[in-house]
Amino acid sequence: MRIAIVSGKDEGPTKLNAFDNALSNAGIGDVNLIKVSSMLSGNAEICDLPKLKPGAMVNCVLSSITSDNPGDEITAVVAVALGEELGCVVETSGINKNPNDLIKEGEEMVRYMMEKRKVEIKDLIVEYSTTKVEKIASCIASVVYLNYDIEER
Amino acid sequence: MRIAIVSGKDEGPTKLNAFDNALSNAGIGDVNLIKVSSMLSGNAEICDLPKLKPGAMVNCVLSSITSDNPGDEITAVVAVALGEELGCVVETSGINKNPNDLIKEGEEMVRYMMEKRKVEIKDLIVEYSTTKVEKIASCIASVVYLNYDIEER
Amino acid sequence: MRIAIVSGKDEGPTKLNAFDNALSNAGIGDVNLIKVSSMLSGNAEICDLPKLKPGAMVNCVLSSITSDNPGDEITAVVAVALGEELGCVVETSGINKNPNDLIKEGEEMVRYMMEKRKVEIKDLIVEYSTTKVEKIASCIASVVYLNYDIEER
Repeated sequence: MRIAIVSGKDEGPTKLNAFDNALSNAGIGDVNLIKVSSMLSGNAEICDLPKLKPGAMVNCVLSSITSDNPGDEITAVVAVALGEELGCVVETSGINKNPNDLIKEGEEMVRYMMEKRKVEIKDLIVEYSTTKVEKIASCIASVVYLNYDIEER
Repeated sequence: MRIAIVSGKDEGPTKLNAFDNALSNAGIGDVNLIKVSSMLSGNAEICDLPKLKPGAMVNCVLSSITSDNPGDEITAVVAVALGEELGCVVETSGINKNPNDLIKEGEEMVRYMMEKRKVEIKDLIVEYSTTKVEKIASCIASVVYLNYDIEER
Repeated sequence: MRIAIVSGKDEGPTKLNAFDNALSNAGIGDVNLIKVSSMLSGNAEICDLPKLKPGAMVNCVLSSITSDNPGDEITAVVAVALGEELGCVVETSGINKNPNDLIKEGEEMVRYMMEKRKVEIKDLIVEYSTTKVEKIASCIASVVYLNYDIEER
């Protein structure tokens, strides 16, 4: 299993468009995202995001937050723990919460998931995106499941 | 990529059943819908909805709205923009909102998505469903991604 | 089409972890769940849940409820009706609702779905999970769509 870990943020004229712009900023704006629940196979390999085929069906774990309240500080986080037998992903997000607290919360939740499964953590990666809302803004962080069908070459 | 654009509406004895009846009214009540996020490949072809295999796994963009408040006017909209390089879909819906305003909102959001991607719009289609709630009603509008696996022949 | 019907419940240090623990308790904690909308092919076969590959992409209908309010009674239900031409699944859940009422509600909704489709019910199965919240708890009930790709052997 190969995955890419990405994040993005942007403003937009509507909440939907701000979210779409944030996805594009992360490099996953031109595909169909199918949200899945957060488990990785053993020894998952982290890659750079390849160029994806427009309209491809792409499985992902997606953390997102959108606000149209100027001045809000918004943050989206994914925490990824890799192990030999399997891996876990946690998504969390918040409005006007300290990004470091959210990151710590994500880390703690994913550590707990691995402990519960008695799988040793070989690597723990946190990716996040945070911004102060000007008018309407969105932040996303995502773990993208890669396979050759969805990659453009 | 082939897609079908459908809509439906119906009443039902519960919210879940009204929603299910609206899906059946649209011709997609007997399959498993997997919601995806709204991108089309280049030069997507619009087809009539074929007969689908019961229980097939069908990717779709789904706009839906359900209300159990008699007298409510409910509307579900999808706006689809097609281009040579890719296409975009927007879903929007509302309760007691002017259907024409929702349609215009959908059109504007999808135009903006295509502009942002610098893709020329070759065709723009809006599909919607609107109804006044008698007891419990649901409206849906959907873009269904077709492939031969899900079609009955 | 083969399906497994499972349920689970557990406490956890956060809502996300309680939910994850409930999934593990049901035997589906180590896979990626993709939520689908509730239709079965004709003559679907009910099997025991096999051992699933960690990280596999697994389609399911998922009913879940999580509460961090100690003393709450939470219940998650799936009701499954099987027929020759097709089958239907209903998910329902509640907080501080009588589990028997929720079960009855699920049964009635799925009976109605089959009647509407003029399909005779050959078998009707209800699976549920209920618990009283100590600190933070989650209940899940799920219909898991099986195929050989996701099974470990």
